[in-house]
Amino acid sequence: MEDGDIICIASTIISKAKGYTRNLKDVIPGDRATRIAEKTGEDPRFIQVVLDQACDVLIETPFTLTEVSCGHVGVRSGVDASNVEDGLVITLPADPMKEAEEIRTEIKDLTSKSCGIIVTDTCGRSFRRGQTGHAIGWSGMSAIRDFRGDSDLFGHTLEITEEAVVDEIAGFANLIMGESNNGVPAVHFRGIPAWTGHNDIYFREGEDVIRKALKKV
Amino acid sequence: MEDGDIICIASTIISKAKGYTRNLKDVIPGDRATRIAEKTGEDPRFIQVVLDQACDVLIETPFTLTEVSCGHVGVRSGVDASNVEDGLVITLPADPMKEAEEIRTEIKDLTSKSCGIIVTDTCGRSFRRGQTGHAIGWSGMSAIRDFRGDSDLFGHTLEITEEAVVDEIAGFANLIMGESNNGVPAVHFRGIPAWTGHNDIYFREGEDVIRKALKKV
Ligand SMILES: Nc1nc2c(ncn2[C@@H]2O[C@H](COP(=O)(O)OP(=O)(O)O)[C@@H](O)[C@H]2O)c(=O)[nH]1
Ligand SMILES: Nc1nc2c(ncn2[C@@H]2O[C@H](COP(=O)(O)OP(=O)(O)O)[C@@H](O)[C@H]2O)c(=O)[nH]1
Ligand SMILES: [Mn+2]
Ligand SMILES: [Mn+2]
Ligand SMILES: [Mn+2]
Ligand SMILES: [Mn+2]
Repeated sequence: MEDGDIICIASTIISKAKGYTRNLKDVIPGDRATRIAEKTGEDPRFIQVVLDQACDVLIETPFTLTEVSCGHVGVRSGVDASNVEDGLVITLPADPMKEAEEIRTEIKDLTSKSCGIIVTDTCGRSFRRGQTGHAIGWSGMSAIRDFRGDSDLFGHTLEITEEAVVDEIAGFANLIMGESNNGVPAVHFRGIPAWTGHNDIYFREGEDVIRKALKKV
Repeated sequence: MEDGDIICIASTIISKAKGYTRNLKDVIPGDRATRIAEKTGEDPRFIQVVLDQACDVLIETPFTLTEVSCGHVGVRSGVDASNVEDGLVITLPADPMKEAEEIRTEIKDLTSKSCGIIVTDTCGRSFRRGQTGHAIGWSGMSAIRDFRGDSDLFGHTLEITEEAVVDEIAGFANLIMGESNNGVPAVHFRGIPAWTGHNDIYFREGEDVIRKALKKV
């Protein structure tokens, strides 16, 4: 480990290590979960877990799209039935920022090196097919590199340029991790130059026009 | 150059090299551009270029979100007034798949090595603040790695796992490129293992629920 290294860790193994899982046989689906599951053809207990994780439901069908408490918007609240024993489902860590901070502190204690940690999940996105890795928690860096106020090659001030660097790193880590049985739950980066910015990666209430449109339908 | 290397190239320099630019003084804004520009506070000629590039307009305000002819959905049709001389705006290459193929062939001719090419653009996304690099054209690889039918670590068949690998690579390349005056328009990757999959990264008409919702509002 060196100062400035960045480690991406799949949320799924944090959840398994910390017990953020649910056993479907202990879940009793309510009316809403039953109604949604009838339309999507999924297990109503699975949908109940999805709803339990959600603080806001943006889409019910043909797939549930929800916001979870950390601010992340994801399909099925990020609940995952893969890479876990039969009957269990994996939920996202309740506070992924805290998980990242905890791991960073442990690594610091063990190695005396100051690294960055990104907790990742594989997520879909709008307008394009296919999933990519996203950052759902991070520590030791800011989520967004802020270029506002910088000049371009011709001396004009850039108007809007906030780069979601943590997602770009999480995406590449996700490629290295692979899915399914690859067995690579963490990726170690060295040599990424540091950046400055802020952590406001999630839109505030009312700022997100796509969410507003989904709510109106 | 080695066989299997991947080169990401910023669309902006392809457009500048190929003349995919417009001079705003030659643009006469129509009614729709004038109406949108009044609401967004932008130059109506700039919006006219955005509309000229669009084959479908998903959102008009507070920012234009459009589909361009290659299938990519982007803010302001990807039209960019940064990193170019005053008065010019850069449009996306009309056929970024062809640009990628052309560059791949030229590199093959020059070096006899077979590499992959990804044409990138810096784009926003839904539900999260900040831009990331996206692939708008590629050659020598498939856009999506297809894990469907694979088994997870516990032997279950994965139901949905299509990984948009080209976007994950484009995102990381975008981080290395930086924005503004960084002056790094291309990034060379070595050692990414090959994958198999398909090129259907854009939803077909009617498949995209978020787009359907935007159209209804
Ligand atoms: N060694 C090991 N790898 C795992 C385990 N669970 C998941 N992985 C690997 O971690 C990576 C990410 O797993 P995935 O299920 O896609 O997690 P997610 O992207 O966080 O939803 C893949 O390479 C998996 O094979 C585990 O229990 N042990
Ligand atoms: N050397 C050089 N770099 C450029 C030029 N135009 C843009 N770049 C660099 O290429 C990278 C991407 O530029 P950007 O304007 O963000 O392009 P986009 O992401 O394709 O819209 C940045 O590092 C820019 O500084 C150019 O004309 N010459
Ligand atoms: Mn997951
Ligand atoms: Mn994954
Ligand atoms: Mn651009
Ligand atoms: Mn850029």
